[in-house]
Amino acid sequence: MTDDLLLRQVRPLGGPTADMLIRDGRIARIAPDLPAVPGVTEEPGGGAIALPGLVEAHTHLDKSLWGMGWRAHQAGPTLRDKIDTERRLRREWDIDPHRQSTRQALLSVGHGTTAIRSHVDVDTEVGLAGIEGVARTRADLANLVAIEIVAFPQSGLMSRPGTLDLMDAALRAGADVVGGLDPCGIDADPKGQLDAVFALAETHGKPIDIHLHEPGELGAFSMEMIIERTRAHGMQGRVTISHAFCLGMPDRDRARALVADLAEARIHIATVATPSRPVPLVEDLRAAGVTLCAGSDGIRDTWGPYGNADMLERAMLLGLRNNLRADRDVEHALWCCSGGGARVMGLEGHGIAEGCRADLLLVEAESVTHAVVAHPPRRLVLRGGRVVARDGHSLREAP
Amino acid sequence: MTDDLLLRQVRPLGGPTADMLIRDGRIARIAPDLPAVPGVTEEPGGGAIALPGLVEAHTHLDKSLWGMGWRAHQAGPTLRDKIDTERRLRREWDIDPHRQSTRQALLSVGHGTTAIRSHVDVDTEVGLAGIEGVARTRADLANLVAIEIVAFPQSGLMSRPGTLDLMDAALRAGADVVGGLDPCGIDADPKGQLDAVFALAETHGKPIDIHLHEPGELGAFSMEMIIERTRAHGMQGRVTISHAFCLGMPDRDRARALVADLAEARIHIATVATPSRPVPLVEDLRAAGVTLCAGSDGIRDTWGPYGNADMLERAMLLGLRNNLRADRDVEHALWCCSGGGARVMGLEGHGIAEGCRADLLLVEAESVTHAVVAHPPRRLVLRGGRVVARDGHSLREAP
Repeated sequence: MTDDLLLRQVRPLGGPTADMLIRDGRIARIAPDLPAVPGVTEEPGGGAIALPGLVEAHTHLDKSLWGMGWRAHQAGPTLRDKIDTERRLRREWDIDPHRQSTRQALLSVGHGTTAIRSHVDVDTEVGLAGIEGVARTRADLANLVAIEIVAFPQSGLMSRPGTLDLMDAALRAGADVVGGLDPCGIDADPKGQLDAVFALAETHGKPIDIHLHEPGELGAFSMEMIIERTRAHGMQGRVTISHAFCLGMPDRDRARALVADLAEARIHIATVATPSRPVPLVEDLRAAGVTLCAGSDGIRDTWGPYGNADMLERAMLLGLRNNLRADRDVEHALWCCSGGGARVMGLEGHGIAEGCRADLLLVEAESVTHAVVAHPPRRLVLRGGRVVARDGHSLREAP
Repeated sequence: MTDDLLLRQVRPLGGPTADMLIRDGRIARIAPDLPAVPGVTEEPGGGAIALPGLVEAHTHLDKSLWGMGWRAHQAGPTLRDKIDTERRLRREWDIDPHRQSTRQALLSVGHGTTAIRSHVDVDTEVGLAGIEGVARTRADLANLVAIEIVAFPQSGLMSRPGTLDLMDAALRAGADVVGGLDPCGIDADPKGQLDAVFALAETHGKPIDIHLHEPGELGAFSMEMIIERTRAHGMQGRVTISHAFCLGMPDRDRARALVADLAEARIHIATVATPSRPVPLVEDLRAAGVTLCAGSDGIRDTWGPYGNADMLERAMLLGLRNNLRADRDVEHALWCCSGGGARVMGLEGHGIAEGCRADLLLVEAESVTHAVVAHPPRRLVLRGGRVVARDGHSLREAP
């Protein structure tokens, strides 16, 4: 008995039809008309396009209400309203981080996502319960999807005493990345928060991913402080800024100068392609060589009702937000939702080529751009060479 | 034999479960546990939500490449590039207006759209071929979907001599609405184009729908000229401005003053909720009492690869673009994609209530907002009381 697999008649990255031999969790051969291998299961590809596993590079697995029945949205318009409403409803509604992260992660698996970076709340009320719950999910689903946990001080780091110790404990308890959040807007102490975040990263030898919603010059100010510390701590290539709305500021020269500095410090950007806010532009970042990854952000949670964990649909939203129309540009939007995330998460062997890890999906479409704009159900999803989803659904039942 | 129908166990507008008796193409009764009617077919609703037919209030049925095999996007970035590329590819690719409009309209029917306003090109090259092709579709599909044809001078009205006569001929040949397009940006003759458009409307007794992509103060200038003529010609309630990107200008006071004038002149706005452009804001328009309708714009055509004719998904995009999160706000976004379009098209009896036309759809969702964010396949679609689609697909086969 082996998990090796021979995929017949697939189109790698939308190219010519070929067979694909999967051995020991990797793509061993890609060629037309491969000979049958005794003992190796064959799977008909039906001419479907093979794409590398999608990467959900910014979400909140601990927050989703998926499967809990419809709940009318309650939060007010400000960021603070949403944070406070969430703190209240977390108590009232029993939003169990383990159960809910399992549900959302399996939804992702069904859509062909093979790796997830999730921010997980750490605060003085929830303590490490979120981290522990998602860490259990990470272990349970290790064969289905790679989960990276960002310890995320959602309610503030400096402004909520005790949180810094909890962040330290979260990193000792298995969080993979140090999170941060609007050092001016939430903590009103940019020096304090950013020094603390970089110190935690240094102590634990972990990368950083900071939510930066701050708009315009305020966001630019915080961003410059992050760039400065990235250089000073030798953290090039290990820092991500999520949202980075300030890069959508009207002063395009100022934004492009910031992008040039990000490129020089090898800082990555994570986007949701938020249609209602100024956002970092795909073309600016690509031209400067900044890696852009993408995510769903919260999925049907107390922050809002939207989201379905489909990163092919996210690539469409990224394309629409950036007015990308040419096939090569839409393909780049898809790369942000796959290879970009893999680079940010440091995933080895991501791609569709001999030697790559067999983290991949099959989707029936005429071209890669067609797959993005139509995002039909994934025919098959492999993770480490094993079939983990068929026809849009994870083979593992959600709780 | 009768087309009357008894829908069992549906939830009108997401409310309590009831039965719905359809007689002579109208909703005759809505009440729990209606008695069976001899000779009347019963249809199980399974607790699905019943919504009024969706209205695609801005599209281009003559342009879609749907079903023609994937074609890589060729147009350059400017509006002029897209117009010129389309003129060229229309010749090279045999984009038959009758066949393509039939395909797109049936796609709409499958998604629960019961009325479509389509702009159709009129220019010195295509002549009336587009109008005639879509008019055939309008007649062929009259029992499936109401189609309204806007004679649309895509390549310019004043700047392309001969077009004005063709517009006149198009209106005599059965076009329902007089179209226009960027009177400054395309024709560089706002007085000329707008006087001509309003004169055509007066001569033929037809309403008006003008594409206005012009941004900022340029668009505001053209909009003021449209408002002035709407008043002068007594056209209140019969003029629509499509896109109206200028209402998304940064100067919110200026935009709101324009919105107040639109309200006073009872001018409607049609939006696509374009994520990459400034757009009219749902809340501004609602507060002022301006009717907002919505559409898909072009669907997979030489202008771009996106679109699928699903107006529930469009409601989601409208919600995302406007940062609508509360259920009542998302429900309003859906109303724009349904009741708003019905009002703009002057459709009598649109709605879910006794006496309304039985133009409606059933969708399995927990709430109306859930139906918008998840937009699952439509279980059943009725048009004038007849079943026209099941499980996401029109019962009429596409050519």
